[in-house]
Amino acid sequence: MTKAEDTLPALDPGTIPLLRGVSTATITLQLLKRGFRNVAIDGVRPVNPQAVRLVGPAFTLRFIPLREDIGTPALLQQPESPQRRAIETVPTGEVLVIDAHGEHRSGTLGAILVARLKARGVAGAVSDGAVRDSAEIAAMAYPVFSRGVAAPPNFTRLMAVDAQQPIGCGGVAVYPGDLMVGDSDGVVAIPRHLADEVARDGAEQEKLEIYLRRRIERGDSIVGVYPASDETLARYRRWREAGEPDDLGG
Amino acid sequence: MTKAEDTLPALDPGTIPLLRGVSTATITLQLLKRGFRNVAIDGVRPVNPQAVRLVGPAFTLRFIPLREDIGTPALLQQPESPQRRAIETVPTGEVLVIDAHGEHRSGTLGAILVARLKARGVAGAVSDGAVRDSAEIAAMAYPVFSRGVAAPPNFTRLMAVDAQQPIGCGGVAVYPGDLMVGDSDGVVAIPRHLADEVARDGAEQEKLEIYLRRRIERGDSIVGVYPASDETLARYRRWREAGEPDDLGG
Amino acid sequence: MTKAEDTLPALDPGTIPLLRGVSTATITLQLLKRGFRNVAIDGVRPVNPQAVRLVGPAFTLRFIPLREDIGTPALLQQPESPQRRAIETVPTGEVLVIDAHGEHRSGTLGAILVARLKARGVAGAVSDGAVRDSAEIAAMAYPVFSRGVAAPPNFTRLMAVDAQQPIGCGGVAVYPGDLMVGDSDGVVAIPRHLADEVARDGAEQEKLEIYLRRRIERGDSIVGVYPASDETLARYRRWREAGEPDDLGG
Amino acid sequence: MTKAEDTLPALDPGTIPLLRGVSTATITLQLLKRGFRNVAIDGVRPVNPQAVRLVGPAFTLRFIPLREDIGTPALLQQPESPQRRAIETVPTGEVLVIDAHGEHRSGTLGAILVARLKARGVAGAVSDGAVRDSAEIAAMAYPVFSRGVAAPPNFTRLMAVDAQQPIGCGGVAVYPGDLMVGDSDGVVAIPRHLADEVARDGAEQEKLEIYLRRRIERGDSIVGVYPASDETLARYRRWREAGEPDDLGG
Amino acid sequence: MTKAEDTLPALDPGTIPLLRGVSTATITLQLLKRGFRNVAIDGVRPVNPQAVRLVGPAFTLRFIPLREDIGTPALLQQPESPQRRAIETVPTGEVLVIDAHGEHRSGTLGAILVARLKARGVAGAVSDGAVRDSAEIAAMAYPVFSRGVAAPPNFTRLMAVDAQQPIGCGGVAVYPGDLMVGDSDGVVAIPRHLADEVARDGAEQEKLEIYLRRRIERGDSIVGVYPASDETLARYRRWREAGEPDDLGG
Amino acid sequence: MTKAEDTLPALDPGTIPLLRGVSTATITLQLLKRGFRNVAIDGVRPVNPQAVRLVGPAFTLRFIPLREDIGTPALLQQPESPQRRAIETVPTGEVLVIDAHGEHRSGTLGAILVARLKARGVAGAVSDGAVRDSAEIAAMAYPVFSRGVAAPPNFTRLMAVDAQQPIGCGGVAVYPGDLMVGDSDGVVAIPRHLADEVARDGAEQEKLEIYLRRRIERGDSIVGVYPASDETLARYRRWREAGEPDDLGG
Repeated sequence: MTKAEDTLPALDPGTIPLLRGVSTATITLQLLKRGFRNVAIDGVRPVNPQAVRLVGPAFTLRFIPLREDIGTPALLQQPESPQRRAIETVPTGEVLVIDAHGEHRSGTLGAILVARLKARGVAGAVSDGAVRDSAEIAAMAYPVFSRGVAAPPNFTRLMAVDAQQPIGCGGVAVYPGDLMVGDSDGVVAIPRHLADEVARDGAEQEKLEIYLRRRIERGDSIVGVYPASDETLARYRRWREAGEPDDLGG
Repeated sequence: MTKAEDTLPALDPGTIPLLRGVSTATITLQLLKRGFRNVAIDGVRPVNPQAVRLVGPAFTLRFIPLREDIGTPALLQQPESPQRRAIETVPTGEVLVIDAHGEHRSGTLGAILVARLKARGVAGAVSDGAVRDSAEIAAMAYPVFSRGVAAPPNFTRLMAVDAQQPIGCGGVAVYPGDLMVGDSDGVVAIPRHLADEVARDGAEQEKLEIYLRRRIERGDSIVGVYPASDETLARYRRWREAGEPDDLGG
Repeated sequence: MTKAEDTLPALDPGTIPLLRGVSTATITLQLLKRGFRNVAIDGVRPVNPQAVRLVGPAFTLRFIPLREDIGTPALLQQPESPQRRAIETVPTGEVLVIDAHGEHRSGTLGAILVARLKARGVAGAVSDGAVRDSAEIAAMAYPVFSRGVAAPPNFTRLMAVDAQQPIGCGGVAVYPGDLMVGDSDGVVAIPRHLADEVARDGAEQEKLEIYLRRRIERGDSIVGVYPASDETLARYRRWREAGEPDDLGG
Repeated sequence: MTKAEDTLPALDPGTIPLLRGVSTATITLQLLKRGFRNVAIDGVRPVNPQAVRLVGPAFTLRFIPLREDIGTPALLQQPESPQRRAIETVPTGEVLVIDAHGEHRSGTLGAILVARLKARGVAGAVSDGAVRDSAEIAAMAYPVFSRGVAAPPNFTRLMAVDAQQPIGCGGVAVYPGDLMVGDSDGVVAIPRHLADEVARDGAEQEKLEIYLRRRIERGDSIVGVYPASDETLARYRRWREAGEPDDLGG
Repeated sequence: MTKAEDTLPALDPGTIPLLRGVSTATITLQLLKRGFRNVAIDGVRPVNPQAVRLVGPAFTLRFIPLREDIGTPALLQQPESPQRRAIETVPTGEVLVIDAHGEHRSGTLGAILVARLKARGVAGAVSDGAVRDSAEIAAMAYPVFSRGVAAPPNFTRLMAVDAQQPIGCGGVAVYPGDLMVGDSDGVVAIPRHLADEVARDGAEQEKLEIYLRRRIERGDSIVGVYPASDETLARYRRWREAGEPDDLGG
Repeated sequence: MTKAEDTLPALDPGTIPLLRGVSTATITLQLLKRGFRNVAIDGVRPVNPQAVRLVGPAFTLRFIPLREDIGTPALLQQPESPQRRAIETVPTGEVLVIDAHGEHRSGTLGAILVARLKARGVAGAVSDGAVRDSAEIAAMAYPVFSRGVAAPPNFTRLMAVDAQQPIGCGGVAVYPGDLMVGDSDGVVAIPRHLADEVARDGAEQEKLEIYLRRRIERGDSIVGVYPASDETLARYRRWREAGEPDDLGG
C-alpha cells in the first residue's frame, strides 16, 4: 500500500479545508469543464442525513461475490481478512471507499466497524453496496454513504479481496488518494492531481452562486444572470469589492 | 406553445382548489373507474417531504441523451437553451414536468432554477430524472418531485430539446395542460378533459373515506364498510346530513 | 388455513418477547451459522421510520398480475376477495406478509386496511410491493414495510389469489408461521423451527455486541475484540458476572 | 387439481386446431379489442427456434425462492416434489407453464424432464425462468419457451411449491386452463372463456392480413389498406369469393 | 419536416457507399478519436441475422407511453397517426429510427409496415423497443434492428406522437439526418457533419486492420502490431504499395 | 502472477480431458452436492453457437469504469496496458476471464485480440461485458462467451487495471487457476481444489444420465428413474456391466 501513496501528487494543505465548503454539484461542474463527465458515484445516499459532509483521500477496499468454501464466518472473522485489516489501516483523515461489485443484499459495514473507523479518526466511508446496523450508524455523527441497508453480514454474499487498488464504485473509477467529497447530492471522486485547482475554482464558484441565487430570489430573470453574463460578472465583482452589501446591483 | 394552450379544454375555476384536497390515491381510483390504469408517475419522490402538495396544469420539457458536440457547458448555458427558456416561460400556477429519458445520473434541475420557478409563481416541478443541490431545494417550501438526486449538471448526460410537446414521464403520458397532482404517494397526471369531474367525484370520495376510516378505527370490520355497502352508504349520508356527529351509526 | 397452522412447531412463549430485543443484523448472523444465507427480504423499508420494530409469525397473501376481466373495481371490492378476507383473518399478533410478484406500481395496502389490521391487533405488515396512502400510514404508530409507495389501488395491476401458502417475498421464501422480524435494516424471515434457538442465541449475541462496541468506542482495536478472541470472551464473561461495570477490562 | 378442471368452460373442439394457424401477434390484437392489454408473457424465447408453434391449455407450476433446509438435493429429488409430480400429471395436450418468481439463474427444467413431457404427449412448456441442458432441449422437435438458459438445477435457488393454482408468468396472469399459444414472437395466454371467439376471429384476421400484405408487397400504400378501409374490406371479400386470384384488386 | 432537412449539411456522394464497407466497431473508434463516447445504440439486435448491413440518414419517430383514451385501436389505425404517416413519408434510402421510450413489451413495427418500408426503398429500421411478426420480418432480406420481439401491437402500451424531432434511441441522441450504420455489433449514429470524414478515415482503418489481422493470424505478437507502431505502419504502406502481396513483412 | 500459480493445487492430468465430456449442468449439480450454489456465470452466451465447448484454468483480467484522463485511445493502446499484456501472457491452454464491472456497452475484446489468443493456443475467453467485431469472432472456430455485443472499444467506458487477481465475473468469484467449463448453458467456475473430483464424479453422472434419458425416451415414468432409485441404479450398473445393450431393463 505504501507504493501507491509514495507516488501520489502532494495536496496543497488548503485543499481539504477549501473542499469542506464546496458542494458536490459545484465540483461536478468544475470537473466537467476539465473533460470529466463520470465522477459522481451512482446511487449512494447518506445513512445519517444529518451527517453528510465528507472530505478526504480515498482508501479503497474491494469485494467480490462469495465462494462458499472461502467466505465462511470462521475464516472471514480472522483478523487478516482484507476487510478487517482495512479497518485498522485506513489512515486518519482518509475515506474508506468500498467496491461491493454490484451486490446490495448484504452489509459491507456494520456499526462496530464504523465505530472503529470513527474512533481512529477516519473521515468517513462510502460503499456502493449496503450497510447493516443502519439505525446505530445513523445515530453516530459520522458520514457514511451507501446504496442501501441490508441486515446480513458481508460474508453472506461477498468477500473482501484486496485494498488500495483502483476500484469501480457506483460506476466511477476511484484510485487510492483521489479526493472524495460527499454531501446531500451524494459523493464525487476528484482525480488526485486536479484536487487543488478544483478546490480553488470551486470555492470561487460557490461565492458567485450565492450572489446569483440572491439575484434570483429577489425576482431577477435567469437571463443574463444564470449563467452569468459578462455584465453580471462585473457587477458581482463590484459587489464583492464593496463588501457584499444588501444592494446586489443588476 | 400557444397553439397547445389554445385548444385545451377550459377548466372549471373550482377544479384546482378542489384538487388541493384530493389525494393521489383517490385520483387513481377515480381514473381507474374511467378506464385509466396508467396515470401514476413511477418512482418520483418529493425532494422536501414537508412540501409535497402539488396541483397545476403540466408544462412539459423533454431531454434526450447528450451528444458531446452539442451538450457542452458553453452551448447549453446560452439563454436560448430549451431548458433555460422553459424556466422563464412556464406560466404562473403551472407545473414544470420533465421527461429525462430514463437518465438519473445528472440533475435536470438545481437550486437556482428552482428558486426562479418559485419566484415566478410556478406551482412546482416533477422530473423523472434527478435534481441537484437537493439540500437547498429541500430547504425551500416548494414542491419538487424527482426520481433521485445527482450532483452533476444536466449537460453531463442530457440535453433539453423541446417544450410543450407530449412526453413520457415515469412511464406515463403527459400532455401539456394535463392536471398534475402530487402528494406523499407521488404524482399523477389527470387527462385535461377529465379534470373537472375527477376533482368533483374525488372530493366526494375523500369525505366518504374519512367516515369509513373512523368506522374502522372504532373497531368495525371492513365487511360491508370498505368498500361501502348500500347500507353503509345510507348511514354515511344520514351522518353527513346530521352534521357529521361523533356517533357514526352502523 | 387451519391445516398449515396445525402442523406448525410450537413456539416457546419467551421467543417473541426475546426477538423484540434482537436486531435483524444479529438474526441474519445466527441464521448464517445454521446455513441460511437468503433470509433478508430485499428492498423493503419502513413506511414510518419511527415504527420499525416488528415481530410475529407470518400470515401470507399472494398477488399475481392483473387480468382485466377479473381485476375490476367491482369484483375486487367484494368482501370475498382474498385480500379483504386476509385483512379480517390474520390472527392477532401475526404479521401480514405480501408477495406482490415484483409489481411496485400499485399499492398492495392502503390506510383503511392498515387501520383495520391495527384495530384487530395484527402485529404489522410487510409487502414486497408498494403501499398507498403512505402519509396516513406513516402517521400511525404501526410497523408497515414496503418496497415503495404508489398511489393506485392494487387492482390497477394486481389481484390477490390466495392466502396462507408459501410465498416469495423480496427474494426470500416465507412459509406461514415463519417468524418475521423487522427493524431499520429491513425484515428477515426465521424458519419456524429455528425461531426458539435463534431468539435465545441472538439475545446472547446482542449482549456481547454491546460490550464489544463499548470496547471499540473507548479506542480498542478490533483485533482480538471483533470478532471476539477467547480472551475477549473470557473478559466479557467476567464483566457480565461483575454486574457490567464501567471498567471493560481488555 | 380436478376441481379447477371441473369448472373450466368447455372448449369448442375446433379451437385448438384453429389456434395452430393464428399468430400471437394476431391474438394480442383480438384480445386488445376485448379490453386485454396484458396477455403476452414478457421475455420468453424458444429454446429451439425451429420448434416454436405451441398451443394448449395451461397446467401451472409455481416456484418460490429456495430455503436452504428444504431445497436440498436429497429432499427435492423425492418423487412427491411438486415439480416431479407435475411432470407426471400434466394431461396430454396441455402446456406446462412455470412461474419462476423472477429467478433466472437456475434451470426450472432440464432435458430429461422435457423428454418425459414429450413422451407423455404434453404440448410443450413455458417458463419465465431458465432451462438447463439447453443444447439437448434445442435438439428435440419440441416447443419449450424460457427467459434464458442456466446450468444449475432448480434447487440451487428455487423450490416448486404447488401446481394448478393461478400464477404470474412473465408479468401475465395465467389460470389453469387458459389457452397458451406460442410462436416466434413469444407466448400469449388467452383467458379460457374467450378462446373460442379469439380463435375464430383470429383465423379470419390472418386471412385478411395475407391479402393486405400482398397488396403492400405489390406496392400499394398502407393508406386505406392497413388498416383496411371499408372499400379495401369489400375488395378483400370479393377476392376471397373469387377464389383468391392473383389479381388483388384495389 | 422540410425544415430539418433544409439545414442539414450536405453529404459527399461517396460517403454512403464508403460506409457500407466500414464496421460499426471501426466507426466507434473514429468517433471516439473525435470526442464522442456515446454513439452506439444500446441493446439492439438484428431481427434477421443474415441482413444486418444498414446505412442511411435517420428519419426519427417518437413514441410515448399509452394513454387509454387516445391509444385505442380505432383512433390509432387512422392514417393520420404519426406512425402511419412516418411509414409513408420516410424518404427512399433513409432509415426509420424509433424512440420507444423504454417500452419493450409491445411491437413498434410489424411485418406489413416493414414490407411497406421495403417496398418504398427505405434503407431499414431501428427501434429501441420491440417488433412483432418477427418470423415474417426475419424472412425478408431487409435490415431491422430492435431490442427484442413482442407480439402485441404498439397501441397496447405506446403512442407515436411526432416524427423528425431529435430523439433518444438506446441511450444515444439521434437527430434527423444523422448517419445510421448497422451490422452484427448493433447500430451507431454518426453526427451528420462528421459523416464524410468518419467514412473516409474509417475505410482507411478497415484496410489497415485487414493487414494487422493477417499479421496476427500468422503468429505475430500484438506488441508493435496492434496498435500499430510506426514501423508497422511503414511496412503496411509498403505492403499496400506493393499490391498487397502474401508476404506481409514484419 | 507467478506467485498465484506457484501455490495452486496440482491438477490430475486426466481432469481437463474428462471435463471436456461433462456438461455445465452436471458440474453445477456436483458442486451443489459439495455446498456450492453460486458457480454459474450469470448471463454469458457463446458468440459462436457452434464453438461452445470450453475447458481450462482461469487467467483473470479486471476492468473498472473509465476515467477520462487515463482511458484515452493514446494511453490505452500502449503495449503495457494490462489488457494488452494479458493477451500476450495468458498461458497456452488457459482461459481469459474478464470482469467488466457490470458494463456491457463497450467491447472488452475484439477480433484481432481474439485472433491472437487463438494463435497463442489460449483455450478461450469469457467476459461478463461485451465483445466487438462479433461477426468476425463468430466466424472463428473458437469459444468466446460474453454478455452481449457492442461496437465501441473498451476504452470508451472501461479501463483494464490488473490481471491474475480474484475477480467477480457474472456474479461468481473466479480465482486464477479455477477450472472454467463452458457449453450451451453458459460457463461455470470450478474451485481449483475440487476440479479433480468434480471431473471424475461428473463423468460418472453423465453416463448414468444417458441411461436414464433412454429410459425416459422409451416411455418410463420419472418415478424411480429420475432421480434414480436404488433399484434403478442397480439396473444401470448391470446394464453397464453387460456392455450397454439396447435392452435397458427396468
